[in-house]
Amino acid sequence: MHGGDPLNRAIGVFDSGVGGLTVLREIIKALPSEDCFYLGDTARIPYGTKSKETVTGFAIKNTEFLVSLGIKFLVVACNTAAAAGLDRIAERFDVPTIGVVLPGAERAARVTKNGRLGVIGTRATILSGAYEREIVRIDPVIKVFQQPCPLFVPLAEEGWTEDEIAHLTAERYLSRFADHSIDTLVLGCTHYPLLKGVIQQAVGYDVTLVDSAAPIAWDVKKRLDEMGLKRDGSGGVKRFFVTDDPDSFKRVGEPFLGCRIDDVKHVDIVM
Amino acid sequence: MHGGDPLNRAIGVFDSGVGGLTVLREIIKALPSEDCFYLGDTARIPYGTKSKETVTGFAIKNTEFLVSLGIKFLVVACNTAAAAGLDRIAERFDVPTIGVVLPGAERAARVTKNGRLGVIGTRATILSGAYEREIVRIDPVIKVFQQPCPLFVPLAEEGWTEDEIAHLTAERYLSRFADHSIDTLVLGCTHYPLLKGVIQQAVGYDVTLVDSAAPIAWDVKKRLDEMGLKRDGSGGVKRFFVTDDPDSFKRVGEPFLGCRIDDVKHVDIVM
Repeated sequence: MHGGDPLNRAIGVFDSGVGGLTVLREIIKALPSEDCFYLGDTARIPYGTKSKETVTGFAIKNTEFLVSLGIKFLVVACNTAAAAGLDRIAERFDVPTIGVVLPGAERAARVTKNGRLGVIGTRATILSGAYEREIVRIDPVIKVFQQPCPLFVPLAEEGWTEDEIAHLTAERYLSRFADHSIDTLVLGCTHYPLLKGVIQQAVGYDVTLVDSAAPIAWDVKKRLDEMGLKRDGSGGVKRFFVTDDPDSFKRVGEPFLGCRIDDVKHVDIVM
Repeated sequence: MHGGDPLNRAIGVFDSGVGGLTVLREIIKALPSEDCFYLGDTARIPYGTKSKETVTGFAIKNTEFLVSLGIKFLVVACNTAAAAGLDRIAERFDVPTIGVVLPGAERAARVTKNGRLGVIGTRATILSGAYEREIVRIDPVIKVFQQPCPLFVPLAEEGWTEDEIAHLTAERYLSRFADHSIDTLVLGCTHYPLLKGVIQQAVGYDVTLVDSAAPIAWDVKKRLDEMGLKRDGSGGVKRFFVTDDPDSFKRVGEPFLGCRIDDVKHVDIVM
């Protein structure tokens, strides 16, 4: 699969599971002609409850696998992995790489009018301080308020996204933002867009919700264009790889991707 | 650490994380003189959402590690791993082994008066049908009703065990048992005892809750005694191993074990 001409190589995308499919969906919209290889590390999911060292180790293994297929560009579509391990990946591999944190941070910094931003994510993403660091680097005047929301991922995976339990959970996690008068909230986890309804209600309709999926897709397009690696046309091939069962990935993943998932292979990079 | 005299070797216990500490606690009570090595596979937790093949692979790796330390007996303290991989472990390793499923099933079969049992557990444990199989083997007349409760583990780990969200979640999962007139409910996951309060309220106070922790400890004692491998006295040494961060294991684990956890080492059997 190592294509000769780098132009014809695929974009590699990985996440701990299905969440990154919301990112892939935007990449497919922005770059319909590109081949994409998506790896979901479903045997070791979730990343958001684990330490920086462990998550970085997983991210390196995932990158090794995608690089072995011959990719021209790498997208770390998992906030926890991008927050923990992006610098280590960039050091270690030759392939141009971006993660979901920076495009989301840039977008939020542009969107806010009052300079008061909220960030929600997994415990590992919030503890890493990655969003705050990027946002403050872009504009040191912006105030950032953070909150981990560990139950949002299991709620999204259970499909309980709009009921009383989801509402109460969102209110419990997000009520503290009311004291901080934020006008923008970063959804710092690729699962959270599925809970947009209850999140929006909990923080109020004056707060703009920002996620990284569309901004990262625009960045990939811009970077490929600058490097002369963007293919034109349409009809790129999509292939999916998982470290656990392919069938449950298909079933759970299709709502995240918004279309059928056909070609899923199990790969053994875990044992 | 390979002791010469098998009598002086430790009991090995593993779980995907801290849940199995509720089992270790009972083993320590029943066998205070035994050395115990506990492995929490916190880098790959949870097991309950993953496939039988993947969980079996993890269970074999965990067993290899504990066997390499020289143990005289193995306790699979994770319901999902016991349901998925106990037969494969027994085939592959020489060490005498028991898992949490059978002692819990035996106890439930003794406790029920009307022969109508409920079983709750992770999705993987319920899908495996392991409890039902064991219970029906013990007494074919017993009717078993099963229900996966995927949000119970994240709720227990978040410490939301007695509030409105925990109550609503328990009611949603357990209301179906009302139609089946069960008189006994098996808590088929080592995390669930932390949610006993809301579970009991949701199923009603006439239903007896059964978990495996005490029954498996009695079984270990009996088996060691039969094999002439039971040490007398007290003061056994406890050592803990984890595949992710030792500090968070200590912090989260102490309420499960009910006492201080001192000696925790990170081991790299995952990458």
